[in-house]
Amino acid sequence: MLAIGVDIGGTKIAAGVVDEDGRLLASTRRDTDPEDPAAIEDSVADAVEELRRDHEVGVVGVSAAGFVGRDRSTVVFAANIAWRDYPLGEVLRQRLALPVVVENDANAAGWAEFRFGAGRDVEDMIMLTVGTGLGGAIVTDGRLLRGASGAGAEVGHLRVVPNGRACGCGHDGCLERYVSGTALVRETRAALETDPDRAAHLIGLAEGKPKRVTGPMVTQAAKEGDQFAVDMLAELGRWLGTGMAALSAVLDPALYVVGGGVCEAGDLLLEPAREALDQQLFARGRRPLPTIVIAELGNDAGIVGAADLARSH
Amino acid sequence: MLAIGVDIGGTKIAAGVVDEDGRLLASTRRDTDPEDPAAIEDSVADAVEELRRDHEVGVVGVSAAGFVGRDRSTVVFAANIAWRDYPLGEVLRQRLALPVVVENDANAAGWAEFRFGAGRDVEDMIMLTVGTGLGGAIVTDGRLLRGASGAGAEVGHLRVVPNGRACGCGHDGCLERYVSGTALVRETRAALETDPDRAAHLIGLAEGKPKRVTGPMVTQAAKEGDQFAVDMLAELGRWLGTGMAALSAVLDPALYVVGGGVCEAGDLLLEPAREALDQQLFARGRRPLPTIVIAELGNDAGIVGAADLARSH
Amino acid sequence: MLAIGVDIGGTKIAAGVVDEDGRLLASTRRDTDPEDPAAIEDSVADAVEELRRDHEVGVVGVSAAGFVGRDRSTVVFAANIAWRDYPLGEVLRQRLALPVVVENDANAAGWAEFRFGAGRDVEDMIMLTVGTGLGGAIVTDGRLLRGASGAGAEVGHLRVVPNGRACGCGHDGCLERYVSGTALVRETRAALETDPDRAAHLIGLAEGKPKRVTGPMVTQAAKEGDQFAVDMLAELGRWLGTGMAALSAVLDPALYVVGGGVCEAGDLLLEPAREALDQQLFARGRRPLPTIVIAELGNDAGIVGAADLARSH
Amino acid sequence: MLAIGVDIGGTKIAAGVVDEDGRLLASTRRDTDPEDPAAIEDSVADAVEELRRDHEVGVVGVSAAGFVGRDRSTVVFAANIAWRDYPLGEVLRQRLALPVVVENDANAAGWAEFRFGAGRDVEDMIMLTVGTGLGGAIVTDGRLLRGASGAGAEVGHLRVVPNGRACGCGHDGCLERYVSGTALVRETRAALETDPDRAAHLIGLAEGKPKRVTGPMVTQAAKEGDQFAVDMLAELGRWLGTGMAALSAVLDPALYVVGGGVCEAGDLLLEPAREALDQQLFARGRRPLPTIVIAELGNDAGIVGAADLARSH
Repeated sequence: MLAIGVDIGGTKIAAGVVDEDGRLLASTRRDTDPEDPAAIEDSVADAVEELRRDHEVGVVGVSAAGFVGRDRSTVVFAANIAWRDYPLGEVLRQRLALPVVVENDANAAGWAEFRFGAGRDVEDMIMLTVGTGLGGAIVTDGRLLRGASGAGAEVGHLRVVPNGRACGCGHDGCLERYVSGTALVRETRAALETDPDRAAHLIGLAEGKPKRVTGPMVTQAAKEGDQFAVDMLAELGRWLGTGMAALSAVLDPALYVVGGGVCEAGDLLLEPAREALDQQLFARGRRPLPTIVIAELGNDAGIVGAADLARSH
Repeated sequence: MLAIGVDIGGTKIAAGVVDEDGRLLASTRRDTDPEDPAAIEDSVADAVEELRRDHEVGVVGVSAAGFVGRDRSTVVFAANIAWRDYPLGEVLRQRLALPVVVENDANAAGWAEFRFGAGRDVEDMIMLTVGTGLGGAIVTDGRLLRGASGAGAEVGHLRVVPNGRACGCGHDGCLERYVSGTALVRETRAALETDPDRAAHLIGLAEGKPKRVTGPMVTQAAKEGDQFAVDMLAELGRWLGTGMAALSAVLDPALYVVGGGVCEAGDLLLEPAREALDQQLFARGRRPLPTIVIAELGNDAGIVGAADLARSH
Repeated sequence: MLAIGVDIGGTKIAAGVVDEDGRLLASTRRDTDPEDPAAIEDSVADAVEELRRDHEVGVVGVSAAGFVGRDRSTVVFAANIAWRDYPLGEVLRQRLALPVVVENDANAAGWAEFRFGAGRDVEDMIMLTVGTGLGGAIVTDGRLLRGASGAGAEVGHLRVVPNGRACGCGHDGCLERYVSGTALVRETRAALETDPDRAAHLIGLAEGKPKRVTGPMVTQAAKEGDQFAVDMLAELGRWLGTGMAALSAVLDPALYVVGGGVCEAGDLLLEPAREALDQQLFARGRRPLPTIVIAELGNDAGIVGAADLARSH
Repeated sequence: MLAIGVDIGGTKIAAGVVDEDGRLLASTRRDTDPEDPAAIEDSVADAVEELRRDHEVGVVGVSAAGFVGRDRSTVVFAANIAWRDYPLGEVLRQRLALPVVVENDANAAGWAEFRFGAGRDVEDMIMLTVGTGLGGAIVTDGRLLRGASGAGAEVGHLRVVPNGRACGCGHDGCLERYVSGTALVRETRAALETDPDRAAHLIGLAEGKPKRVTGPMVTQAAKEGDQFAVDMLAELGRWLGTGMAALSAVLDPALYVVGGGVCEAGDLLLEPAREALDQQLFARGRRPLPTIVIAELGNDAGIVGAADLARSH
């Protein structure tokens, strides 16, 4: 059976037809306005109709940034769109006359990696998406962990430092404040202020203005061999490994899949993470060290994962 | 079908016949020597034979303190007994001529609470056993979380303070160093040293010697209204809630079940835990606050859980 | 001998004639523009000339926010004015034809409290000024501690939490991030977000908008008995006591004098500080607990202290 | 004027005649029993009498491990000897018929370095003695900091990690738990447990038994190029630099002098300390980085410092 996956982002909707092997047979996209929920539904319906013209589709999976209820239809809370306890799945089901299953976006992407990507050979994995923030998806014994209220796998808000860096969520010391593109930029700018001599190369890339430094600049400079940038990524990587050690004590996965924009840094990020995990892993020596790899599926992971989760519902 | 549960502890073996409703129909026990694995197997066989005389039994579940492999037969590592990658289940199966399933002790107890005790009405719960150390069991979507290598749910070794209190596991800042009977006694003795005036009542119970203070003494003093003892338990309770907040970010359970000797303190422990969890819960207000209750099944939980897990294998 | 004290702030200059008993015999002020160092010097000269008309003055002391060199003339770095290694004292001396001594503003205020205010009866005290930031002045054995490069007593940048809250100085976990009006407002707003129910009273004072909450509002609400506001001040107070415990391990003062706008909260701030210091003081029981009091001299402290330090130079 | 310095340790007394240039003209020692305060006084008197036979001496300075009151005579509390509010100086003065001045041992050693050793060219320095514990001495503006109750400069008990490693003082997270020979041994043994493969060389030195590892073994292995041992010392060094950054925010010294047995490691310890201090120093770039050097005077520092402090009393 073919399924359509729909990935509702902040500024655009991407949709595609996905077969049972996770292949994307066709895709389309629509720009959208997060301020206008009705327009989002119009765009989703329009994209789905377009894809159905050429494909026989049995179900629709929707990926959205937010908490999704256990009915896998209600969006309890969305980060960027004004949905609060909104029956998105049911509304779309009536409109499309197709079964609709809604899933958290990080979960959808993680599921795609588990089924068809970097995690296809294991039963227990965690995906960490290091983008602007830090998203997570957890698969245990071959099943996606959603939690009692759909707020599971929010690993970005695992507290790793009591009274630590202030987080937008209102708490302190969340892992996301140490492992994210935002954290990379903030720490780099702070280090530029306190130690400008070390950072001549990076300041050059930023045209002399610390405030213009971006995450991709740090990655570029590091790949060009700039020690300062290498150090900044290594610091992020060590925190990533620290978070993994915490997660391993609780979940004991065989594999970590790292996605998101910051993973462009590759082993500049992953090697320090591996070292930190090795040093901090509980019961190290009495169990295998979890493997850490980069995600394979890229931007389509949300579509593919949402489609596959809907099909297997 | 009836099942036998066997709980192998450090100094004794307890075994019982358990029916499908979790009732303990008969039980027996044997003293044992953790230094002598062969004697342990003799005792287990002896106890099982005794119980089988009067009951038709289809399967045996064994609960042991250690990591159990995914085959649910091999003890990868045991805390108190010299088993290393030992095929305990297979050895007992051949000896008893019955199917044998081995399970981690905290998991067995947590499963019993999930099936027949405090967690019987939820699908997502975490049991925390606050005894000498801190054990954990995790149930997500009605299934026990074991992890890829049987080292899952070791919540006592979740790091909550970077560079924190030294743990016997070789790392620093493990939750167990803040939430356990051992932690309670250590902190109480330290506070007695730095502030003896506040602790006249407790020093009286300990016959004037801080080193004689025990966890049960602190609980007793607190129940008698001693403010110092109340404060010590509250400190432990706040750390317990802190650990729960971390676990909730990852696992989003509906319920925490607290067991172990320290939970004798009841609400003197649980109220501070509830407050700390309320203050620290990620996305508080957008999801229900998890419930925190005391375990219901007591010392038989290991037998009942091991038996039930074996039956449902 | 009479001395003039001049307090150069961000937007105004205050100056006064101070006698040997610390009494302010006359005073004047000028508005000023921190962007225009030349205008600041003009204003200082003008104010000094005005005061000298009616008083025979032997020396001028200048208080400024910044690092002052050991020559007590050079401003190495100023927080709000574009002085970098600027010989302010020498420039003013030539212009005024009077001896001029420059001092850090927190030091000047602390010295005034030591000589004529809350610290007049001790030899070892620390003043902590809890305003927008956290300033400090240290007196040991009756002498002001300046440090080798004039950067001593920057207690606001003592790190109290490794990897803690991000500070504008480029580092993490500085005490100022936990003990300052800025910290109070930030923490209060964060708590309003995560727990709006508790804060009805305070949200009312802020006309329904968490972003309008100010430090004085929190103090007002606390004085009116609002438990949420009381808790927010208590949290600040506990961190204040935590900082004091750190300082006591190093400096062992007899007295802490707390100044700045946040000290309007009085014992709502000081009682939690006293408790935290009591709990954390090294060698508690083997030495007196330092006393904690509110500053006595108010806004004139900078003038009085600068004048007195100049006179005793 | 010649002075006698007496260094009262846990198992022996060392005494010597010191001239005004800090030279040790003669010395003697006595074994002693810390359980017997009367015997200690006998030994001190005996040693002083021996030294006076050949030298005209005007004053005696006594160095002891403990808090010394502002009268510089009373031992408020001693770490190893049963003195509590004991007028040691007065008792010895009557017995010796010479002026006697008592000083804390770390202060005496630090003063010797300040006057005649590594600190002779600065006015603001801190000595850190990294031995079994972590001792400190602070000189600001050429004067020794004693504190209001003689408990100043206890930098080993500056808290650097909230809820950190448990300290014998009853508190958590004291710098001494991270920077001392005891910490080095503990951390090394823990790392041997969690990661035995890395430590073959060191385990060889300890004849296969982690519990036999000593601090000098780690230093020896590191000097022989063993990476594991180098890493362990570097970790200690980073914490040392972390402590220095905290002290610099408060005291702004020009120089750190590092003494004690662990400083045998030399730059293996000091280079990581320098890097950590460089990274963490408040207002780095706006003031000179403090210099870090090894102490020069060795075991005689206590005698020399106590004698000199007594002479200048």
